[in-house]
Amino acid sequence: MRSDTQHFKCTIDGPVARIALNRPERKNPLTFESYAELRDWFRDLHYDDEVHAVVFLPNGGNFSSGGDVHDIIGPLTQMSMKELLAFTRMTGDLVKAMIHCGKPIIAAVEGICAGAGAIIAMASDLRVATPDAKVAFLFNRVGLAGCDMGACAMLPRIIGQGRANELLYLGRSMSAEEGHAWGFFNRLSDAAELESVAMELAERICAGPTFANAMTKTMLAQEWSMSLDQAIEAEAQAQAICMQGNDFRRAYEAFAAKKKPVFEGD
Amino acid sequence: MRSDTQHFKCTIDGPVARIALNRPERKNPLTFESYAELRDWFRDLHYDDEVHAVVFLPNGGNFSSGGDVHDIIGPLTQMSMKELLAFTRMTGDLVKAMIHCGKPIIAAVEGICAGAGAIIAMASDLRVATPDAKVAFLFNRVGLAGCDMGACAMLPRIIGQGRANELLYLGRSMSAEEGHAWGFFNRLSDAAELESVAMELAERICAGPTFANAMTKTMLAQEWSMSLDQAIEAEAQAQAICMQGNDFRRAYEAFAAKKKPVFEGD
Amino acid sequence: MRSDTQHFKCTIDGPVARIALNRPERKNPLTFESYAELRDWFRDLHYDDEVHAVVFLPNGGNFSSGGDVHDIIGPLTQMSMKELLAFTRMTGDLVKAMIHCGKPIIAAVEGICAGAGAIIAMASDLRVATPDAKVAFLFNRVGLAGCDMGACAMLPRIIGQGRANELLYLGRSMSAEEGHAWGFFNRLSDAAELESVAMELAERICAGPTFANAMTKTMLAQEWSMSLDQAIEAEAQAQAICMQGNDFRRAYEAFAAKKKPVFEGD
Repeated sequence: MRSDTQHFKCTIDGPVARIALNRPERKNPLTFESYAELRDWFRDLHYDDEVHAVVFLPNGGNFSSGGDVHDIIGPLTQMSMKELLAFTRMTGDLVKAMIHCGKPIIAAVEGICAGAGAIIAMASDLRVATPDAKVAFLFNRVGLAGCDMGACAMLPRIIGQGRANELLYLGRSMSAEEGHAWGFFNRLSDAAELESVAMELAERICAGPTFANAMTKTMLAQEWSMSLDQAIEAEAQAQAICMQGNDFRRAYEAFAAKKKPVFEGD
Repeated sequence: MRSDTQHFKCTIDGPVARIALNRPERKNPLTFESYAELRDWFRDLHYDDEVHAVVFLPNGGNFSSGGDVHDIIGPLTQMSMKELLAFTRMTGDLVKAMIHCGKPIIAAVEGICAGAGAIIAMASDLRVATPDAKVAFLFNRVGLAGCDMGACAMLPRIIGQGRANELLYLGRSMSAEEGHAWGFFNRLSDAAELESVAMELAERICAGPTFANAMTKTMLAQEWSMSLDQAIEAEAQAQAICMQGNDFRRAYEAFAAKKKPVFEGD
Repeated sequence: MRSDTQHFKCTIDGPVARIALNRPERKNPLTFESYAELRDWFRDLHYDDEVHAVVFLPNGGNFSSGGDVHDIIGPLTQMSMKELLAFTRMTGDLVKAMIHCGKPIIAAVEGICAGAGAIIAMASDLRVATPDAKVAFLFNRVGLAGCDMGACAMLPRIIGQGRANELLYLGRSMSAEEGHAWGFFNRLSDAAELESVAMELAERICAGPTFANAMTKTMLAQEWSMSLDQAIEAEAQAQAICMQGNDFRRAYEAFAAKKKPVFEGD
C-alpha cells in the first residue's frame, strides 16, 4: 500500500495505516486533489492484504474544516451542471471507497471537524474524540442541502433521526459530549492520548481475524436496506464462508489448548 | 397559504406558519374534519413559496389527545372495511403530506400528546417539549395495533428499535425526560418559553437556504430505504442541483466579503 | 403449545410461556439439538392461540454462553461448506422463527449472554437485565465475522450504528449499564426480581389486544426496509384489519361505560 501520498500524510507501520490531511495552518481543508487522492487510496486499499485498519488523525489540533472556501467553493460557483455533478460524484466516491475498502477505519477527531470533514468522520467505522471536538454538518450554512456524501442516510442511523434532523437543518456544531452521549463517538480522550486510544482500537482489530473483519464491514453496508429475512440469509452465507476459514479453526484449537488464538487473516 | 382554516388554528407571520388543534376543553382531539383539513393544508404547503417552516403548537396546555373517542372511535366501530380503509388511508395521507410538504415542521409538545397526536409529533422534523409532556402511542390500549400512520417504521429510527417496541406494545407514556434522553425531543423548555423556543428554531431554519432545506427534507425521506451506494449517488445529484442555486453563490460571496450571507431561497 | 421440550426448559402458565436453556453448569450453551428444538418450537408458536407472550429466562445465574465450544465449534471446524451452510441457516431460522412467531418475546438477561445467546436477546422484542449482565457479540474472538444470525442488520437499529460497529469489531462485552443507556435493555432489575419484572411486562402485553399485538410484531418486521410511503400504506391496511376486530369495539364500549376494557384477542 502506497504511503508516498502527495495531498495527505500517510504512515504505514505493520497492519495500521495512519493518515491525516496536511494543511494544519488552515485547519486541514479538503481540496480537489486531496479528495481524489483519498478516493484512489481507499480504492487501492480494497485490494491490499497488508494494511488491516486505518486511523484517520487530526493535524495541528484540528481534524478538517471541510471543502476549502477558496480552492473548492469559489470554483464550484462557476461550474456547469456537468462539472458540478462530476465533483459531487467524486466526493461521494470517497465515501463509497471508505465503505468498500474492507478495513475498519477509526477517525480520531480533535478540534474542528466540519462539512466534508464531518462526513469523513461519519463514514468511518469507529470514532474517538477530544473534549474540544466540534462536528458540524454545516452545509446549510453555505447555502447547500444537508444531503451531502450520504449524510441523510448515515447520520440518522448513528445518532437517531430526530437529532440528525437538527444537525442537518441548523448546521450547528455537535459537541464532543453530545457526540458521545448520542453514539457518534465511541470514546472521548484527552488530546495527548487521542492517537494512542485510536491506535489501540486499530491494533485490537488487527489482532482479530482480519478476513472475518472485512466480511463484517461488507455485511454492515450490504444489509443497510435489506429485509430482515434477506439479511439473515445473507449472514448465513457470509458466516459459512468464514467458518471454512483457517482463523476459525485456529481459534478452536487455541481454545482446546487453553491458549490465546493467533489469527493469520485467512 | 391559507390561514382561514376551519378545524384548526392557523397564523402566518412571514415565513413561519403556526398551527394548533383547537378544542382545548377536550385536550385537542382530532376529528374527521381536522384530519382532512390538516392533510389538505399540508398538501397545499408543498406548492407554497412563502411559508418555509411550520410550528405545530399545543393549545390550552395540551398538544392533542388523538382521535376523538365520540367523534371518531365510536363511528369507526360501525364501519365497513371499505370505510375503515378510507379512514386509515386519510390519516396516513396526513403523515405523507407532512413528510412531502417540503418545509421543516417543529412540534411544540405540552401536556397530553397521545395516539394520533403522538404521530403528528413523530412525523415532525424537530420536537421541543415541556417537562410535563406525556407522549403515548396508546393504540394497543384501545384494542388496536401499534402500526398506525407509520409508527412501526418511524419511531424505531428516532428512539431505537427496543424502546419503540416497548412504547408500541405497552401503550405507556414516554416522559419528557425519557424523550429528551432518547432523541425524541431536541429541547426541553418551560411552558412559558415553549413557543419562543420553537419559533427560534423555525426562524433559524427560515433564515437558511430554504430551497436547500426543502431538498434536505426530500432526501431524508427519499433515502429511507435506499442502499448506501444508491443514497450517495442520490445525494450527489441533489447537492449538484443546490450548487447551481443562487444561495450557494451568495454564501460564497458573503464569505469572501467577510459578511453574513443573506439567503433568498433560490 | 408443547411444554415437554427435551433440550430447553419450558413452562406454560396461562398465556405466558417461560423458557430457558438448561445446562446451567456450563452457562447454558446452545447445541445443535437446542437450536433445532427452539426453532421448531417458535415455528409452532406461530400457529398457537393460547400462548401470547414468551419470557426467555436465564438459568443458574447466566443467560447463555452461546454455541458450545465442544459440541458445536469443534464439529463445525470439520464440516463441508454444504454442512456449514445448513448450520448457519438453521441458526438464522431460529431468529426468523422468533421474528415471525406473532408473540412478543421478553429476554431476561443475567450474567453471561454471549454469541448466539446475545443474538437471542437481540432478536427478542423487549429486554430486561440484571446489573451484572454481560452481552458479548464475540464472534470475531472465535475467528468469525460479526454478521451472525442478523446481527449486522438488527443491532445497529437497536443501539445505533457506531456502537454496534464497536461491539461487532471488538467482540467486547456491553455492560448492563451501557445496554440500558443505549436502548438495548428496557429495564434493569436485581436478580431476585428479574423474572417478576419480565413476567409483569409479559402479563401487561397479554392483557392487551393479542391479535393486534401480533399485528404490531408483524409490521415491525415487515416495514424494516420499506419506503416511508410504503410503510404508511401497509399500516393503513393492517390497522383497518384491526379496526374490524372485536377488541377495538370492546375498548370503545368499555370507555363509553367508564370501565376498563377486557380484551379477548379477536
